[in-house]
Amino acid sequence: MSYEAYFQTNRERHLDELKEWLSIPSISALSAHKEDVNRAAQWAADRLAEAGLEHVKVHTTGKHPIVYADYLHAPGKPTVLIYGHYDVQPVDPLNLWTTPPFEPDIRDAKLYARGATDDKGQLFLHIKAVEAILKQEGGLPVNVKFCIEGEEEISSPSLPPFLNENRELLAADAVLISDTSLMEPGKPAISTGLRGLCSLEVSVTGANTDLHSGTYGGGVPNALHALVALLATLHDERGRVSVEGFYEGVPELSPLMREEFAKQKLDENRLRESLGLESLYGEEGFSFVERVGARPTLELNGVYGGFQGEGTKTVIPKEAHAKITCRLVGDQDPQDILDKIKRHLQRHIQPGAQLHIQEGEKARAFNADPSDRIFQLAADAYEQVYGTRALFTKDGGSIPIVAAFSRVLSAPVVMMGFGLPNENLHAPNEHFHLENFDKGLRTLVAFLKLM
Amino acid sequence: MSYEAYFQTNRERHLDELKEWLSIPSISALSAHKEDVNRAAQWAADRLAEAGLEHVKVHTTGKHPIVYADYLHAPGKPTVLIYGHYDVQPVDPLNLWTTPPFEPDIRDAKLYARGATDDKGQLFLHIKAVEAILKQEGGLPVNVKFCIEGEEEISSPSLPPFLNENRELLAADAVLISDTSLMEPGKPAISTGLRGLCSLEVSVTGANTDLHSGTYGGGVPNALHALVALLATLHDERGRVSVEGFYEGVPELSPLMREEFAKQKLDENRLRESLGLESLYGEEGFSFVERVGARPTLELNGVYGGFQGEGTKTVIPKEAHAKITCRLVGDQDPQDILDKIKRHLQRHIQPGAQLHIQEGEKARAFNADPSDRIFQLAADAYEQVYGTRALFTKDGGSIPIVAAFSRVLSAPVVMMGFGLPNENLHAPNEHFHLENFDKGLRTLVAFLKLM
Repeated sequence: MSYEAYFQTNRERHLDELKEWLSIPSISALSAHKEDVNRAAQWAADRLAEAGLEHVKVHTTGKHPIVYADYLHAPGKPTVLIYGHYDVQPVDPLNLWTTPPFEPDIRDAKLYARGATDDKGQLFLHIKAVEAILKQEGGLPVNVKFCIEGEEEISSPSLPPFLNENRELLAADAVLISDTSLMEPGKPAISTGLRGLCSLEVSVTGANTDLHSGTYGGGVPNALHALVALLATLHDERGRVSVEGFYEGVPELSPLMREEFAKQKLDENRLRESLGLESLYGEEGFSFVERVGARPTLELNGVYGGFQGEGTKTVIPKEAHAKITCRLVGDQDPQDILDKIKRHLQRHIQPGAQLHIQEGEKARAFNADPSDRIFQLAADAYEQVYGTRALFTKDGGSIPIVAAFSRVLSAPVVMMGFGLPNENLHAPNEHFHLENFDKGLRTLVAFLKLM
Repeated sequence: MSYEAYFQTNRERHLDELKEWLSIPSISALSAHKEDVNRAAQWAADRLAEAGLEHVKVHTTGKHPIVYADYLHAPGKPTVLIYGHYDVQPVDPLNLWTTPPFEPDIRDAKLYARGATDDKGQLFLHIKAVEAILKQEGGLPVNVKFCIEGEEEISSPSLPPFLNENRELLAADAVLISDTSLMEPGKPAISTGLRGLCSLEVSVTGANTDLHSGTYGGGVPNALHALVALLATLHDERGRVSVEGFYEGVPELSPLMREEFAKQKLDENRLRESLGLESLYGEEGFSFVERVGARPTLELNGVYGGFQGEGTKTVIPKEAHAKITCRLVGDQDPQDILDKIKRHLQRHIQPGAQLHIQEGEKARAFNADPSDRIFQLAADAYEQVYGTRALFTKDGGSIPIVAAFSRVLSAPVVMMGFGLPNENLHAPNEHFHLENFDKGLRTLVAFLKLM
């Protein structure tokens, strides 16, 4: 049977299996979902074993399990380590989902569910591509290892020590990851750069209790006023970060890099319209792809304090909170950035209000060399299926583990994405276009056979 | 039996009854509690009837009922209309309550429950004072009417039309309200001024969906950034409101008024310590009592947008919200103030972000003439029980209906408060000091007998 016939014959089974996986709410950030995370790991292990992989093992860690499997029967051939993650982001606000996040639903040739594109849906393609070759040919053209984690959405605390302790087990000639996206429909991309990340939580407190705004209003600090005034100092009017020294270590954009970005030919007007915006927004002097691919950010992900219910409540809240993440590029050091932000906040906090800061995740930016042979093979594989050569892009997101793989295994990391940028990852109504589900399976088979 | 003996004998019954009322979650702002609000109204009607009042009626309105009752058997004597409210504020954040808000609990001679002091507890004193005189003497020394509403915490939309349509039914020589507080323990106060109020909700929207801060961060507007920048423009560094024209109609503080405020002898240091603050905060050149009694405010009561859960979520939120109330003084017109704020917000909103404003409550400030005989009688009554003469104060809170009573019934409105400023009204762990529960009953009996 041709691979085309094979994938058509098995399409319904594949989709049913993926839906089953997506229905497990494996939210790594929420301790209430610990058992669901474990179930999602075991589900992956079971499918790897069914596919014919060997040495399948669910490794326990300090937090969520790492699933390993391999098939090493191609002596003299390269070894590719496939990485992905089975954990997902939280789902609120729940009321904005058209169908529940853990009840997968296919509409308009898209599969809707939390994790559909990030990353269960994309990771699933690898399991099924390997299964297809094993079933069709009784073996694999290369040696394959799987390393699947459940902490990607919480910055992978357990994976770097696991890598260090299992260098031999995981040794590979290339690392293959599908956790990024095409440029746009029909335009494949291979990400050769990722931004780094650091996060912090900021709390401001006023009086030791909530107070009535009639009895006290005008005479005591309001935690919300202090927080809002503080957060407003973090950016200038064009969105440039105002924290002293923030841009140290950020590389200048060379004319060559600008040319590379321009090749992506992103239609900013179409993007703006698709997002329902009057205008895009960001640092002056940069295009959208440059802003997202080559510039750092400081982003408020959440701000909250006081009354949020229906109607009015005349309260002066005792506390107010902000969740902040930064995307980092070039040589920006996450700890150094956190220190600079902390100094800035301490300098700008209103008198009478108390400031509390908690550090979170830290990951450096990553950059690969696209002239490596493996990147050209990946582009060839895309070309066979999509009919067009993949662009080498810089991705704005952060996969903290990518730099660790590159460093610990001394192997190139190839990011072959099959998602699309507007598939609502990390947002309500996350989905995965089935066109790329289908093409992804075929592209990955082609890539393994080209290696 | 002396009134002293009567109140001692009936103390346990009185407290049990009040606890029963307080256990009804009559939150007027939340539609889910509509039936509870109705139950609390009927409870009040039943107690008024039991006390011996006549023509007890639960009037339906467009929203929550108004309870009326009277006892008009003192011809030639004045008529006093007693007003109060049986609705309460919302209770979140629930986790900060030591005991649940609707399971009344007595600790350290204080009764803890939502509504304990604002206003069920204080209103209850009037019902029981009238009941006491009727039981002890078989009649009342004056004519008494009760008018009790269930919408005070949502700005009393139904009461003004009810007053207008029932001028004859409600006609009175004085209106008596207990919904304010003593200066401090042992120091009674009669409020001769209330601040006005206006409220609005502000929403800012960016893209038409939440976005991943990796894929889009730096290139699109973030609703939280726009909201925070906007809200930070509303005050200067010392808490003075920066909205153009906001202070028009605010009276200058005359030396005489400053003297009156100084008589309150508020210990600002003690207040600061009791609130756990490093410093009080507010407009320069004013004492705390002046800031709260004679100055207007613009207060953020709630701000929210984006992720609020455990951990990190790298989202660019599509929308962000703020709830704002202003306290008004002098001739400030609520609609005029709302218009000025709206103009300010429209002028300062960031490009690319959309602004949405919803107007809420509107009430003018109120001022009474303390030289009126009824105010002196109220001070006499306090003196009999508390052993010290009541101060005439300006209260920072707003009881929107007070100005309406004064205007529609052309009668002086006497505010005899028995709460204390730090009883956490509108906040977790609201409570009522039983010392003032006891003294309040005796003071109200004394007042009715003096009239």
